[in-house]
Parts: sequence; structure tokens; C-alpha cells
Amino acid sequence: MAETQSFHMTPDEFRRHGRAVVDWIADYLEHIESYPVLSRAEPGEIRSRLPDHPPATGEPVAAMLRDVSEILLPGITHWQSPNFFAYFPANNSGPSILGDLLSSGLGVQGMLWATSPACTELETHVLDWVVELLGLPERFLSSGTGGGVIQDTASSATLCALLAARVRATEGRAGGVGSDGRLTVYASTQAHSSVEKAVRIAGLGEDALRLVEVDRTQAMRPERLDALIARDVAAGNTPCLVVATVGTTSSMAVDPVAAIGHVSRRFGAWLHVDAAMAGTAAVCPELRSINEGLELSDSYCFNPHKWMFVNFDCDCFFVADRRPLLQALSVLPEYLRNAASQSGAVIDYRDWQIPLGRRFRALKLWFVIRHYGVEGLRHHVREHVRIARELASWVEADPDFELAEPQTLNLVCFRHRGGDGFNERLLDRLNASGALYLTHTRIDGRYTLRMSIGQTGTQRRHVEAAWERIRTEASRLAPA
Amino acid sequence: MAETQSFHMTPDEFRRHGRAVVDWIADYLEHIESYPVLSRAEPGEIRSRLPDHPPATGEPVAAMLRDVSEILLPGITHWQSPNFFAYFPANNSGPSILGDLLSSGLGVQGMLWATSPACTELETHVLDWVVELLGLPERFLSSGTGGGVIQDTASSATLCALLAARVRATEGRAGGVGSDGRLTVYASTQAHSSVEKAVRIAGLGEDALRLVEVDRTQAMRPERLDALIARDVAAGNTPCLVVATVGTTSSMAVDPVAAIGHVSRRFGAWLHVDAAMAGTAAVCPELRSINEGLELSDSYCFNPHKWMFVNFDCDCFFVADRRPLLQALSVLPEYLRNAASQSGAVIDYRDWQIPLGRRFRALKLWFVIRHYGVEGLRHHVREHVRIARELASWVEADPDFELAEPQTLNLVCFRHRGGDGFNERLLDRLNASGALYLTHTRIDGRYTLRMSIGQTGTQRRHVEAAWERIRTEASRLAPA
Repeated sequence: MAETQSFHMTPDEFRRHGRAVVDWIADYLEHIESYPVLSRAEPGEIRSRLPDHPPATGEPVAAMLRDVSEILLPGITHWQSPNFFAYFPANNSGPSILGDLLSSGLGVQGMLWATSPACTELETHVLDWVVELLGLPERFLSSGTGGGVIQDTASSATLCALLAARVRATEGRAGGVGSDGRLTVYASTQAHSSVEKAVRIAGLGEDALRLVEVDRTQAMRPERLDALIARDVAAGNTPCLVVATVGTTSSMAVDPVAAIGHVSRRFGAWLHVDAAMAGTAAVCPELRSINEGLELSDSYCFNPHKWMFVNFDCDCFFVADRRPLLQALSVLPEYLRNAASQSGAVIDYRDWQIPLGRRFRALKLWFVIRHYGVEGLRHHVREHVRIARELASWVEADPDFELAEPQTLNLVCFRHRGGDGFNERLLDRLNASGALYLTHTRIDGRYTLRMSIGQTGTQRRHVEAAWERIRTEASRLAPA
Repeated sequence: MAETQSFHMTPDEFRRHGRAVVDWIADYLEHIESYPVLSRAEPGEIRSRLPDHPPATGEPVAAMLRDVSEILLPGITHWQSPNFFAYFPANNSGPSILGDLLSSGLGVQGMLWATSPACTELETHVLDWVVELLGLPERFLSSGTGGGVIQDTASSATLCALLAARVRATEGRAGGVGSDGRLTVYASTQAHSSVEKAVRIAGLGEDALRLVEVDRTQAMRPERLDALIARDVAAGNTPCLVVATVGTTSSMAVDPVAAIGHVSRRFGAWLHVDAAMAGTAAVCPELRSINEGLELSDSYCFNPHKWMFVNFDCDCFFVADRRPLLQALSVLPEYLRNAASQSGAVIDYRDWQIPLGRRFRALKLWFVIRHYGVEGLRHHVREHVRIARELASWVEADPDFELAEPQTLNLVCFRHRGGDGFNERLLDRLNASGALYLTHTRIDGRYTLRMSIGQTGTQRRHVEAAWERIRTEASRLAPA
């Protein structure tokens, strides 16, 4: 019978438009250094150029691409620019974009093994590869009681760790909160804000979170953790979760995981290690000391979407024992029952995460690892660390500047000796120049500039030019 | 100075490989009917064909594409097949894949307005379009106290609704649980499992959830809701959240939102309406009765990644008052402070969701709405509903089969008159044939087949062939 009218894009149209979009991206990445890194758009400026109503009839792809170039690009802060040194990298790469494109095209929904076995099995397999790639403890391999899963972000991984920890702390009793005295959570004052967010979401109450003092390197003081937990236990509280950070967002401080692990074990608290930013460094054997003590942790996460050339979103989350996680998150309605799940022979990743549905995210991680190989990943991570070390030496050699912390991995925290206000003005001027993008933090209360070196395209010449500009702007700002 | 060695894919290589992947996807979609819809892979089969270790050195893209075709495809359940009638559609389209590709290529992280103003502003703008497109209440527009945001899934939207409701119910007091008597949550027995999951995640305790009885159409009985809430209030509990479902997963039942809204308001409970599956139907004015009563709701969500040709993940979540949501989810560390956020003139979507980071997901929704126009979306949704109606008439006309429920929108629930065991065997044989994929549910305790008609490519001929096969298989199975 005759086909009915269709507004769908035909495969041939998709081929043609797909090439145009691929070319658009290649052009964008080739010319990315020509845009101001930090968008100069004013609030409301982008919206004001968009039509008020959805179109009554369809528009050509060429019109959309034109609007992306003309309307959206001025509102983009270019995370993929080699001159993006702000926050943390959210890097990307050709093979990652291609793997993600395949995921979009296949359009499978991997909530259950049965809804696409390859989606689940590739993920399990590649996360086992990652254990080897980073030299993580074998207890995170899927062949034992543990295993890995891809989450959207480290925030979600931290929340899942807390939920699993609660199950373990309350022995799975419904209610959880309060049934064993108050549940308490511990992280350093420098831990990521997602720990506080998770505690709030899980309904433990904000005063369930204890922020543990840090030492001069901004790392958690394990003896303070010990004292806080002991006090809580004496007060009838139940220590539920300890979060140790390997590479804090603010200054890349590394908590002493082994010592923290011993304290956590003694009190029966779940230890989650958040290495969102720094974890990738362990691809290099000479940087693998960041994994010290991990064998004492109950869960671990890091983000290939930060520094491993995988585009957002891709966080790898590992547990040593998957049972409490499943107990926390598994709900099985009739319409999801199937023979494979009931056999117990398969993993249903819906039970390892907050949402039900899931993309085929393992594809992009698989493509990246295969494209670069272990050798390529090591090369680029090593190079970023080498450049950061060099930048730190330039800062140290300059009498007007000082390092706020010893450089760790790919982050350099520094300040001009001109004081907080001066550094704040310096940052604003640098970012307004469009030539680079830096952000700030406070270390020991002092306004500090951060330069995070991990974008895919960042080379020594970009950092050298940035440092030259920082010095030049500072001398212009400085009183004569 | 000389470039250092690089393992990155060059822009020209990206152009070449990008075309190959685009062509791969076009070929896949052209030949999708040639694959068995439900994967026939056995547990472990796909993994067994993958190498045990990550590659030491890089591999060519051609090798990866070959492995996708040869190793992964047999493990794919083809959600994009026009013969996929299982669960719910997770449909897709050319413009969506292209919008998502741009999102991957741009690689922006939209956690804050400042980290890419266009990412935030396009999202706000397109979600305002969606209010108009579906005829939703104006209180969900960003111009008032409310607004919309893209979540990954309806599960996350439900969790966010619960967290906002808890803030409102406890007037934001830390701790939440218990401080006002026990918080209670209400949903019908047919509501999605994500309600139970959210209650568990939020730590309200599983016995905080009351499942409200349904009527013969599987819709919530508002007088039962009223009685349950009244009993809880009398017992000193605080009704926190009511979830009404517009289009249940099991049988597409529609709860009486207006009546439920009046009950919720009387007791001060937050009303969240989950229209994940059915919401898209409201693009058609003649189907807009599903929006009745929405003006009484505090929040609403539906999934363009189900039936609006947007690839997973894209759930649109709207609130009438954004303040309790922000209060529930906003945590502000120093390293995220910036002038734009502090001015209050911008939206920072990190405070509207569980994770911190976020993809530029508005691009794919924008591309889809622009490609189809209102006209194109209406055409295809209307067509799916028309075909479902026709299928229901065929079922009714066949003496061996019966409708388990009157057909609603694009779902037909039916069964052979041969009993539960017969229907289960029939389902297994149909799915094993590879020609189509159906799933089941239980309605009034009886095993029921579900046929969900919403895949992008599904036309009358596919449903006609499926029905023919169902009848044929049934007659083969039936005792002579």
C-alpha cells in the first residue's frame, strides 16, 4: 500500500546533512582559537534573538546551522579551546564524538540487559579494562563481588555511594534514617559540593555532614576524622559514609586515602573515593601513587569526561560489593520482568543508578581507549602534567607572583603578590581579553587564580602565551 | 615552536571518519527491518568476543566500525525498528541525531549560565516553546515564577519534584524528615516504579509511600486519595507529594488530574504530574484533554525522548514555582561563584537537577521542533494514534482475542482468550521470530500483551503485518 505523507528526514537527507554537521564541527575545532574563550553575551542577549514561537512548518537544516553559527556561537564559552584553563577540563576528542554519534544513531535504551545486551556487556567489559588501565584494585572488577558502571557525573556517583552506604549502615531496614541513631557523613572542608548535595537529597539532614579539617596541603587530616567519628559513635550516631577526595576541585589536593581507609574500616563506615578530576592521571605508572590506599575503599569514581578525552557525560563508578547498591536502587515492576534478569546471569544497570533509562555511553569510552591506545592516553596526560610543572616553575621564578600551593598534576594555583582585590581585577581583565579563561578559588581565605591544564588541544605554546599575558596584564594593573 | 607528537585525530581525519559514521547510521536505519528486533544474544556472548585487555597502541576507526557491525549489532535490541512495539517507544530522528552531534562536538558544560550562556538560554527558550506547543498552563513559563528544565529522565524529574515538595512541606528546615511528623507520598498502584525509587532515595522510608487504588480504567480514585490523606493528617503525618500519572507505563491509564489536584490543594500537598509517555500527544489539539487539571499541578514532566522524535535522553520538567526546587538543590562553593549568578539575572540549571554538570541537550529538541514544525509533529503523533485505534478495532473484531483495556492514545493492551500461560507462550514465540518485539504487563492480575505504537518509522503496514503474525502464531499454538 502507499506510504502516508511523512515529515521524517530520509536516509539520503541524513547523509547529506550529517556531512554538513561533521564539517561544521571540524571547522569549529579548527578555528576555535579565533573566538573569545569566555562568552561575552549579556544575560538575555541570546534569547532575544530567537523567535517567540515554535515554527508552524518545518525549516531546513541549513537555517538551523546558520543560527548555530550566528546566534548561538557568541553565547558559547569554548570549553574545547586550548586556552580554556578554567574550572577543570571537560575535554573531548574525535573518537569520542564519533562514538557518541553512534550511540545517538543506534538509539538503544540500556536500562536492562535484555533491552540491548551489547550496551550492558560492552560497558561491563570496558570498565574492567579501565581497572587495568588505571591500576585500580582488582576488587572493582566485575568478575568478583564488585564492578563498574557509567554514571552521568561524579555527583550522581557520590549520591549512589551514599545510598549504598546507608543500606549497609542500616542493614537494609526501610526508613534508614534514625533507626540506628543518626547517620553521619564525613568529608574534608575541601570536598566537592556534591557531597553536601547528596546528603541533602538523601534526606539525612544537613547537620549530618561533618567537614573534616585539612592540613597545609589542603588534604584531610585523618586524625581529625578519627576524632570526629569517635565523638559521633560516643553520641550514639552511626558513621555511614566517608568521602575522600583525590584531587580536590579547588586546588587538586590529595587526601591520604590509606590512613582514611583504616579509620573508616575501624568504625565500619563506607569509604567512597572521589577522583573525578585527577583519576585519569593513573594511566601513567609514574603518577599511580594517587591510587595508594584505594584497596581500602568501598567505591571509587573518576570522570573520563574531564581529562580522558571523552565528551560529557561519562563518569566511571566502581563498587567493591554491588549488593548494597542494588538493594538501595532496585525496584522491579511487572512490565520490566524478563527471563534474563530473573536468571541472575546478567547485569541490569538500571539498578546501579538514579534514572531508569540509559544511553549507550560505553561506546564513546571504548572508541577513545581504542583510538589512543594506552600509549596515546599516557602521552597526552604526561604532557599536560609536564606543562603544568613548567608553568609552576615560571610562577616561582617571578618575584611578583607566588604559588598558592605546590603544583599537583595538571593544576597550578597561584596569585600576584598584590592582594585579593588586585588578583580579582587581574582575573576579570584576563577573561575579558578573550584570549584565555581562568577561574579562581580561595585558599586559606586568600583569592587565588587557578590554571587547569587538560584541554585536548592545549600545548606548551598556549600556556606560555597565557603566562606572558598574565604577566603583561599584571604589570599594566600594578601601580607604577 | 615545533608541535609535540600527538595522538589526536586531526580535523581532516575527523571529517573523513565522521562521514563514515554518518553513512554507517544511514545504512543501519535503512536496513533496520532486516535484523531480529529483539537481540538473540545469550548472556556473556558479546563480551566473549571482546579482547581481554585495552590496546597498547591505537587502532583505526575502520576496525572499530567493523566491530560495531560484527560484534555489537547481534547484541542490539533495535529500539529504532518500526517493528519495535515493546515497553514504550524511545524514538529518534535525523534532526535529533544531528542536534546531539553538535552538542557532542561543541562539548560545552552548561552547569552555570556563565559556562555557556547559549546553552542555558536556548533551553529556557525552547521549554517556553514547549509550553505553547503542548498547550500547558502559562504558570510553567519562565516569565513568571516557574520554568522548565531538561532532565535526563522522568525518574530524575520525579525525584526533583519530591525534593522540592519536601522543602515546601518542611518550610525548608534542614533535616526535613520527621521534623513535621512523617512525610507521606501518594501515587496510584499503577504509577511508575520511579516514585518508589525516589521515595527510597530521598530517605523518607518505603512505608512513606501510599499506593492509591485505581478504578476499572486503572486510573487513580481521587476519593481514595482523599481518604488516605485525611487518615494520615489525622495520624499527625504531613502529606508531602502526590504523583498523578497521565498515561501509565502498564496500560496508558490517565489519572483524573483535576480531581486529584483539588484534593492535593486542600491538604497542601505538592502535585507532580508524570506524563512521560503520553505528554507528547498534546501537540494535537484534539488530544489535549490529557492536560485537563494541569493548572492545579505544581510540577509536570514528559519525555520528548519517548514519542517526540528526540533521542534519549531528554525529559522536560516544569515547575510553577522554582524557589523550593532551588532551595532543595542549590549548594554554592567558592569556585562556582561568578558575577552573573550573583546578579540574580540568570538561571543556573545546576540548581534544577541532581548532577552538577550538564550537556547541551536543548540543541536536539530545538532541531526536532524546527525540522518538523508544529505541523509535522502533529501529523506523526496523529498517525500513530490512528493506527493504534485501527489495531484495537481488529482485536475487537477477532473472536479469539480481547482488549484488556479500551485503547488509549498509542497503546493497545490485549490478550488471547486462551489464558495466561497461552499468552506468555505466544509472546515468547512472537519475540523469538525476530519480526517484532512486544512486552507484557498484568492487568487485574491477568497476563496481557502490550503493543505500543510510536516508533519513528512505524506505519500502518508494520502494525498490519504484526497483527497478522500474532493471529497466525496464536492459531499454530492453539489446540486444534
